[in-house]
Amino acid sequence: MKEHWLDEVCWSADGLAPVITQEQSSGQVLMLAWMNRDALSMTSETGYAVYWSRSRQRLWRKGEQSGHRQQIKEIRLDCDQDAILLLVEQQGGIACHTGRHHCFFNRLRSQVWQAVEPVIKSPDEIYKEK
Amino acid sequence: MKEHWLDEVCWSADGLAPVITQEQSSGQVLMLAWMNRDALSMTSETGYAVYWSRSRQRLWRKGEQSGHRQQIKEIRLDCDQDAILLLVEQQGGIACHTGRHHCFFNRLRSQVWQAVEPVIKSPDEIYKEK
Repeated sequence: MKEHWLDEVCWSADGLAPVITQEQSSGQVLMLAWMNRDALSMTSETGYAVYWSRSRQRLWRKGEQSGHRQQIKEIRLDCDQDAILLLVEQQGGIACHTGRHHCFFNRLRSQVWQAVEPVIKSPDEIYKEK
Repeated sequence: MKEHWLDEVCWSADGLAPVITQEQSSGQVLMLAWMNRDALSMTSETGYAVYWSRSRQRLWRKGEQSGHRQQIKEIRLDCDQDAILLLVEQQGGIACHTGRHHCFFNRLRSQVWQAVEPVIKSPDEIYKEK
């Protein structure tokens, strides 16, 4: 009998795999996050990205506070079966908790990291009590 | 005095950070790999991607055997300073050791991982003795 697709992922010793999230329409790499088996299962079932938050040690339904959910277009696995690529559409156009479109906003230039992407919406505004 | 840019990266307990490598011309995510401080330093200095091979536990000058080097166009760091994004041009058009353009060739479809990208050149041909 064929192995379950979730077991074909080579989860690390702590049960995680790194996940690259890329915006399908623009090709922009939005963020790098982590999933465990449950997170990947829920992502596939619900059609929206669910990660494992290492800092909070719990499942993290992306956008649960901000509303900036990520609708899944494709799920891919790499040659070593230990890294995942999500192709998504980013709701609200903001993936980063700093209020930027994506998380990779620090560019190395002459041995200095420089923030080169604008804040679209302030975090205070995004995460205000509702 | 300002911190050295290499020390601004939040290296993990084992001294590594995950690295996403994206082809600048196509936007294709080519691979996910790992760097330590030395690898990132050498990448910046030489202008070509150098990773840390976790399986071989040594620095890995990408393309050292295959010739498929990755010329650096941009180096970026994310909001948490613990993930790196490289924008590169992929020499030879092949990033994956399986002989495919990129590593994320397994697509999930109806709970089955399917290889959906062609092998451009056989690994035997790529890694033959020279």
